[in-house]
Parts: sequence; C-alpha cells; structure tokens
Amino acid sequence: MNAILLDASELRGSHVVLTGRRAEHVRDVLGSVEGEELRVGVLGDRLGTGSVVAREAESITLEVRLSREPPEPSRAKIILALPRPKVARRVLIDLTAAGVKEIHLIGAWKVDKSYWNSPLLTEEAVREHLVLGLEQGGDTVLPNVTCHRLFKPFVEDRVPTLARGARRFVAHPSADCVCPKGGTEPFMLAIGPERGFTQYEVERFVEAGFESISLGARTLRVEAAVATLLGRLS
Amino acid sequence: MNAILLDASELRGSHVVLTGRRAEHVRDVLGSVEGEELRVGVLGDRLGTGSVVAREAESITLEVRLSREPPEPSRAKIILALPRPKVARRVLIDLTAAGVKEIHLIGAWKVDKSYWNSPLLTEEAVREHLVLGLEQGGDTVLPNVTCHRLFKPFVEDRVPTLARGARRFVAHPSADCVCPKGGTEPFMLAIGPERGFTQYEVERFVEAGFESISLGARTLRVEAAVATLLGRLS
Repeated sequence: MNAILLDASELRGSHVVLTGRRAEHVRDVLGSVEGEELRVGVLGDRLGTGSVVAREAESITLEVRLSREPPEPSRAKIILALPRPKVARRVLIDLTAAGVKEIHLIGAWKVDKSYWNSPLLTEEAVREHLVLGLEQGGDTVLPNVTCHRLFKPFVEDRVPTLARGARRFVAHPSADCVCPKGGTEPFMLAIGPERGFTQYEVERFVEAGFESISLGARTLRVEAAVATLLGRLS
Repeated sequence: MNAILLDASELRGSHVVLTGRRAEHVRDVLGSVEGEELRVGVLGDRLGTGSVVAREAESITLEVRLSREPPEPSRAKIILALPRPKVARRVLIDLTAAGVKEIHLIGAWKVDKSYWNSPLLTEEAVREHLVLGLEQGGDTVLPNVTCHRLFKPFVEDRVPTLARGARRFVAHPSADCVCPKGGTEPFMLAIGPERGFTQYEVERFVEAGFESISLGARTLRVEAAVATLLGRLS
C-alpha cells in the first residue's frame, strides 16, 4: 500500500477515522506511531499526507492535507482477452498501478466462458482490485473497466471508435514483428488469452488497423507479458 | 506449458514415456490424440517435436525429433532482493521464461530473514520453478540461481567480478532517473524488496557503478516491476 485511499465522504473536516484493513495496515505493517506522516489520497481527487493523530485498538485517526495532483495517466488503452479469474485479478491490479485508465475485458475463442461467472469478476470485486491497484501505484483515479463477451461485435463495431487517434497493437506469440520500443503517442494494446488469439481473431484486429507484434521466441505468462509489453511501449 | 521438457536420461532411442504431470497436461489440457505433434525440448539440449505414438490411461508415448537450438538467452543478469516466497516463485518462473540465465537472490535490510527458510526455496523447489519457467518460455537451458544472505560482502566483494563488462542498474522507487529504453549491451539489474532498498544499500550499488533508476511516479508489485524493467531494458 503506497498510498492510503479515502473516500471523500469519509472526511470530517480534515480528519478521517480508519478501521478494518486500512487501520490494520497502518498499525501492523507500517507500525506507525502518533505524529507520523503517511501518504494518502482521496479517490478521484488529490494526494497528500495524513498525520496519525490518534491510534486506538480498532482505529487510526489521520489529519489529512491534500497537496498534489495524481500522477499522469498511462498513454495505453488495454484490450485483454479474459484470463483465468485469479490471473485477471492480478492483471487488473498491475494495469491500475501502471496508470492505465481504460481496460476492455473481452471474450475470444480460447477464453473459457465459465470465467465470466467468477465471483472475482463481480462489479464489487473488480472495484476492490482497482482500489488495490491505486494503493499500489499511489494514484486516485479509478480506471474504467468494461466487459464485452462477444468478440466480433466488439472488434468490428466498438473498436473503431475506441481506438480513434491511437496507434494499435495486437500481441500474440506467433507474430513475426517484435514489439517496438518507446514512442510518445497514445496506443491501444490487445493481449490474447493464455493460449493465444486464433488466426481469425488476429485478422479481425489487423483489419481494424492493429499491428501484429510478439515478444520474440519466448512466450510469457499473461501477467508478465502485459507488464513487459507496457514497459516496451510506454 | 509451451514446450514439454525431457531429461536426456528418459529417452529410449527416440522414444519417451511421459507419466504424471506432463502426461496429464498432454491428455487433459492439450487433449492431444495419436499422431499429433507437440513441442518438446531436452534439458540442456535442443528443441523439436514429439509425435504422440501411444496414449494410455496413465502414460503418453512420444517419438522425439530434435531440430532447433534453444532461443538466444537474455542480455540481463538479475540481482533480486528476496521477495516473499510466493512472489519469489512467480518471479523465478518469469525470469526463466524471459531467458535470464544468471539470478542472484540477496538479503537486504527490508528482506524478512524468515523467507530464507521457506520450503518454496529449497534447491529442489527452486529447480521446479525454473523448469516451469523453461516450459513457459520454450527453452531448455536452466539459469543459475545463487543465494547471498549477506548484503555487504555480496555487493562489495562479489559484484565487481559478476558485473564485469555489463552496464549496471539499481531499480528503486525513489530514484530520480527514469529507466532508459533499449540498448544492446549486456546489463545487470538489481531490484529491491517490496519496501525498497535503504539509502545505504542504494549507495553501495552506486559505488559499484550502478545507475540508480525508477519507473517514474508509480510503484509496481515486484513481479510487475521486474517484467516492466526487462521490457524497457531488453
């Protein structure tokens, strides 16, 4: 937790009383004492410091001073074929921590349909992962996550609008071109399921203006591939 | 599993009988039938194909033809402050899949000493993670993993020899310079524990010729940071 996130509704003037997970973190992980200053942020607002003004058995009271805008968002928009829910959870945290603000989870031929019904993918659970990502990255602005179960209408009808003005990449292990490095423009990156997009799916992306890229001869786990691609393209 | 790894001692002429985890993978995950060709590799040797010649209840027999050298190794040597064992496991898999051949796990001020005694870090368990990484990356050459519990003698006495001829980076969240992109030379990358290297530790690395770098304003999970840094520097 690199920033303690607050909801604006929790503030009483400049004070906030933390209980539960956040209080435990301050007490047990950080071991903070009265007078100590912690990094805090208000969801959708600024970041700053919270001074510990009271430390009770079940709660921590902070005096909050907001002073900084959240960090610049990433230039990336991400399309991700829904991975296994446990993997999806970690990827959502990582993408949020990396500052990505637009994430599209999509169906594909090799996406197991049962994944869509996982309790890890309810709206409430997804929001929890996103908050964990903001806490990790030290940010306050939640990304938008949208689910699109049907591949074809998403790529054919939605992507042209969503990708407007962005350079476009579709990553899959058998692509001939290795992922380029750097660049400064906005980009949209589509990442396949663990066993890859089908040839048909890659062709639909290419028709929609996506460059087909890989990370070379080696295939990485989805989480590692996402982070490596963002590292190269960002 | 992007390649089924065999030990040379398992081959009977050009045939091998798989049981256990690998047979289950071929049967239940890949659903392979007789005549199908799978990617195989022999540890420390070449890659090629294995044709399914028999499929029994408990075993799969492959006829193996080796034809290709393993992919080029990564230019990176990695120094990693030992993370929590579950995280260490995934990072070892990812580094191996990415082709890193030299990994030094080290102690640091913010590394919990109990981590060194985890059952996930016995020699046998580490080898299992590395084999999973080779299977993921489609490679046959195991990396060398060395443990160095004491920070100071490692950085002062060992690093000058280990890093000879390599550009050197130490990654930690509070560094002023953002990680550069690209390059073609060998490099050594030191990555801190989840709560970072101490100022003292960073200074020792800088004295040993390391450039102090970060990934910008955001702090990522260790696994994501490792993959992102490798993506940028590779």
